[in-house]
Amino acid sequence: MTLPQQRITLVSLGVADLDRACAFYAALGWSPTVQADGMACYQLQGQALMLFGRAALAEDQGRAEAELGTGAMTLAQNYTTRDDVDAAYAHAIAAGARALTAPEPVFWGGYSGYFADPDGHVWEVAHNPCWPLAADGSLTLPEAP
Amino acid sequence: MTLPQQRITLVSLGVADLDRACAFYAALGWSPTVQADGMACYQLQGQALMLFGRAALAEDQGRAEAELGTGAMTLAQNYTTRDDVDAAYAHAIAAGARALTAPEPVFWGGYSGYFADPDGHVWEVAHNPCWPLAADGSLTLPEAP
Repeated sequence: MTLPQQRITLVSLGVADLDRACAFYAALGWSPTVQADGMACYQLQGQALMLFGRAALAEDQGRAEAELGTGAMTLAQNYTTRDDVDAAYAHAIAAGARALTAPEPVFWGGYSGYFADPDGHVWEVAHNPCWPLAADGSLTLPEAP
Repeated sequence: MTLPQQRITLVSLGVADLDRACAFYAALGWSPTVQADGMACYQLQGQALMLFGRAALAEDQGRAEAELGTGAMTLAQNYTTRDDVDAAYAHAIAAGARALTAPEPVFWGGYSGYFADPDGHVWEVAHNPCWPLAADGSLTLPEAP
């Protein structure tokens, strides 16, 4: 192996109530690959998202549960059009997400909205005209101008 | 576009001091694709990681900065061997990461350690013998047994 390894293989979200969290992601239309033993795991593009209990997450991290917060971090989905952002945002709100900011034009030249899942984990849905996406929705950053 | 879109294009970390955060990720050996205008952006595998100020992150999210926490979420890198986990962990600590739990065998049959970046964002380095990785380090979840 050579270091560094500039990648994220797994994003794990600590949740207060796994059934509630799974119901939300199911309402979004997401399908878990594995759902058992107090966790649910979703295949993303070359990585996975896992949901499991906050207490277990804190214990794994070697920290007190009281030390945990949420949201100084954003999980984002970029889309190829503003209409797609609007559709994704409406889809999330209909699934029970908490609205934070409705999609609107933003200072960096794009179009973006924010919502939170039942545990306060923050998602952004955005269109960035300077960030073209591959057909599979994956992102390759353009070089700095 | 068809919904749902089961993917994460961008992970954004709110940081108290961008220079300090960039210095940490540079010490890890990571190279930003773009570093300008109060942010730094790193190409990962089909997605990007962005660092920018906590206040700006809170404003973008439509929330008060006081509402932000860190760490009810883990960003993980899986490796193909325990030795690779040890090397990645030592590399992070040498780069200035805060040690949370040193790599050790864990109940789910793998080997895992945790550290925090300068803003408390938690990273896990792990080997999961049931999760083989592709040559590029990307993950495809096995089906449930």
